Amino acid sequence: MKDVKYDPEDLIAALATPWAESALAVIRTSGPECIKNISRIFSPSDKLEKAEGNTIVYGYLVDDKTKLDQVMAAVYRAPKSYTGQESVELFVHGSLPGIKKILERLFQSGFREASPGEFTFRAFLNQKMDLTRAEAVQEIISAKSKQAQSLALNRLSGSIEGTINSIKSEMTDLLASVEIQLDYPEDEVDMPDVTTSETKPIEEKMNRLLSTYKAGKIYQEGVRIVLAGQTNAGKSSLFNLFLKEDRSIVSDIHGTTRDYIESWISIGGIPVRLFDTAGLREADHPIEAEGIRRSNEIIDSAHVILYLADGQEGLTEDLKKFMNVYDDDKRCIYLWNKIDKTSITPPETFIPISALTGEGFSHLEEKIKEIVFRDQYIPGNEPVIDSMRQKNLLESALDSINKYNSALLQGMPMDMAAVDLTDALNALGEITGEVTSADVLERMFSNFCVGK
Amino acid sequence: MKDVKYDPEDLIAALATPWAESALAVIRTSGPECIKNISRIFSPSDKLEKAEGNTIVYGYLVDDKTKLDQVMAAVYRAPKSYTGQESVELFVHGSLPGIKKILERLFQSGFREASPGEFTFRAFLNQKMDLTRAEAVQEIISAKSKQAQSLALNRLSGSIEGTINSIKSEMTDLLASVEIQLDYPEDEVDMPDVTTSETKPIEEKMNRLLSTYKAGKIYQEGVRIVLAGQTNAGKSSLFNLFLKEDRSIVSDIHGTTRDYIESWISIGGIPVRLFDTAGLREADHPIEAEGIRRSNEIIDSAHVILYLADGQEGLTEDLKKFMNVYDDDKRCIYLWNKIDKTSITPPETFIPISALTGEGFSHLEEKIKEIVFRDQYIPGNEPVIDSMRQKNLLESALDSINKYNSALLQGMPMDMAAVDLTDALNALGEITGEVTSADVLERMFSNFCVGK
Repeated sequence: MKDVKYDPEDLIAALATPWAESALAVIRTSGPECIKNISRIFSPSDKLEKAEGNTIVYGYLVDDKTKLDQVMAAVYRAPKSYTGQESVELFVHGSLPGIKKILERLFQSGFREASPGEFTFRAFLNQKMDLTRAEAVQEIISAKSKQAQSLALNRLSGSIEGTINSIKSEMTDLLASVEIQLDYPEDEVDMPDVTTSETKPIEEKMNRLLSTYKAGKIYQEGVRIVLAGQTNAGKSSLFNLFLKEDRSIVSDIHGTTRDYIESWISIGGIPVRLFDTAGLREADHPIEAEGIRRSNEIIDSAHVILYLADGQEGLTEDLKKFMNVYDDDKRCIYLWNKIDKTSITPPETFIPISALTGEGFSHLEEKIKEIVFRDQYIPGNEPVIDSMRQKNLLESALDSINKYNSALLQGMPMDMAAVDLTDALNALGEITGEVTSADVLERMFSNFCVGK
Repeated sequence: MKDVKYDPEDLIAALATPWAESALAVIRTSGPECIKNISRIFSPSDKLEKAEGNTIVYGYLVDDKTKLDQVMAAVYRAPKSYTGQESVELFVHGSLPGIKKILERLFQSGFREASPGEFTFRAFLNQKMDLTRAEAVQEIISAKSKQAQSLALNRLSGSIEGTINSIKSEMTDLLASVEIQLDYPEDEVDMPDVTTSETKPIEEKMNRLLSTYKAGKIYQEGVRIVLAGQTNAGKSSLFNLFLKEDRSIVSDIHGTTRDYIESWISIGGIPVRLFDTAGLREADHPIEAEGIRRSNEIIDSAHVILYLADGQEGLTEDLKKFMNVYDDDKRCIYLWNKIDKTSITPPETFIPISALTGEGFSHLEEKIKEIVFRDQYIPGNEPVIDSMRQKNLLESALDSINKYNSALLQGMPMDMAAVDLTDALNALGEITGEVTSADVLERMFSNFCVGK
């Protein structure tokens, strides 16, 4: 958090696209008098300075008479911009030395490099979005499957903000009726009793939202699936089958030590990090022990373990040993591979499969989903939360409501009970960012990517 | 070239920014009725369809009622667009699954994936730029130093087109005067003689442009500099000194075998691929021979070899051996390292240096530039060519002019000589793209990056 600045009065600039050669790069700028400041290093200067909001001006970025790049400048006038401030987005050639030159020129001209998430932070400060939407921005970007991207987009569109606001409004009503009792403590007027049952609908809504957290996490962060099993049982074929069946592969990552392969795939919209530990045990080498250790580490942190047996070999000693160790482990799925080549009937707990022909694959997929979503609430069209910050605040609000109800039951004075209710309301206010300290905000936005 | 389409009547779309998670991604689209077609998958649809050119519309990309992403759409109306056609640029969240979704939606909606360089190809077809400018677009993107980017930007601004056009105009005048002689072959009127000296100024201009090619190549493609020398002479320190002194490092590449390190740096604006072969010889291993082979390969292809001697050790046998082998090699620079720690005076041919303190570094830089630009024309403010296509056509034009002059000297009929002059003119026309076959064009643009 050191050296990270979030002063909204500064002129900021950052590359918003990845640092790599490409057709186009976008440099984002924002701040007071941003347009005037950019126009000083733009030709034709006048045209940019006088440009209306939401228009595009063609020209050159310049250093005195020297042209730095031919660019398109998108001009946004406050408050109609992402940040709510004046803003200019520069569409420049995706040339690395060119981008460097332009950023250097901007930094010479009164701009400083934007801190992570600083554009979104300003959007929040200028009430362009509440905190749940701001968090959704980063969640969209880092989404690993289409489903995860949709859920985050839903949050960006305000689904959580809406739910929280409706809960808050019910709670404010409740607090009001409590406060009336405080004002007229002597039963002067005909007043309904405040009972613990009144918080029930509020609690239900909050619990419902909370219950989406695990599923939200799964969609956002993905599940780890590991292929284990005997040498030559066909692990690589199964790995390739997964890649083939899934047409939404996001990226491949090779283990830095090249002894296992990891790939992001998606199974029914769930992002999956699939690990093939094939290389870990096979080396006939002094480092074998190291390989086994690492292999076990990957298996330990897995959500699902696919154990592949060679159907042609039947129940081997290796297989029995593994089944003994992982006896009760509900993460295991046992696969009886090569059913296209064998007539040996698989034991009951095994799914027959052919990694070569794809037979049995959809059965396997169903089984994986069953394990991943076991004991978990599967969201329909409702908002799904993914942020731990939001989860913790919801829990803390529920906690305060519990305290309030206990206070009522114990016959505590109403003004003490009201304090708990106010606490709960504040926790909800923190979720949307109405009452959030500068520290918390800066910590939150510093996890964003630069340029957003 | 198979499967690559360049039909300008198609609707095309492509990701113009790198395929990586980031704040922002840009999807470019172009083609007849492009705006209408995008508006069908955009909400609010009307606002986009009716948008004026060079404006930005905020909204959602949708699939029926499902939101795909929150986007800004930049609308360009023909002919005021990059391609000269209707065009929409979509600024979307830099989410990989999100980008995939949007591209899929576009491909379902009548768009096809743009071929490499296809946007620029259309710009050329619609006379937004000539071929030398079109080539400059890709040269800017792949420029490896600021100087290279400037030279390419200069070409994009039309410096070569201008030069070629002025040469062509002089040549057209000459051809006209030759043709007058053809029309009046019998000396009916008072006519100046056509002499070989008349092509001189034209040839000079062409030769001048041609002479920039080597320097242009150096700026665009960079030079290879290899660090060689004894173990412990300080090669890694020198490598790091280069990286430290140069604040425009573009990227680091590690040799795939991890036995040498390669880094793009820039020395006085020249992009340099610096190789440290440190790891190649040091392994005390059966593969040592392989290391030496590879090390020699890298040295053989180098433009400059920096041989580092340990000043504390004096003239060792190793050093003498190397100097014997590379005796006449003008690529070598000998460095006497660790002068901060030794009082041994270096032999005359050595540059004293301290890789640790940086002493002597600027002397080394001067020496490198001297070798790189030896026997080469160093361009001032004039246009510099980098394209082999342009170079070959210039040479072919010069060739035709030579033939024309020979024909004159040999007293060949004027109509035959005129053919050579027309050939020369055509070659120049090919440079700017006035007369270029579809095949050549497609081959040229297929080397571009997608989205440009």
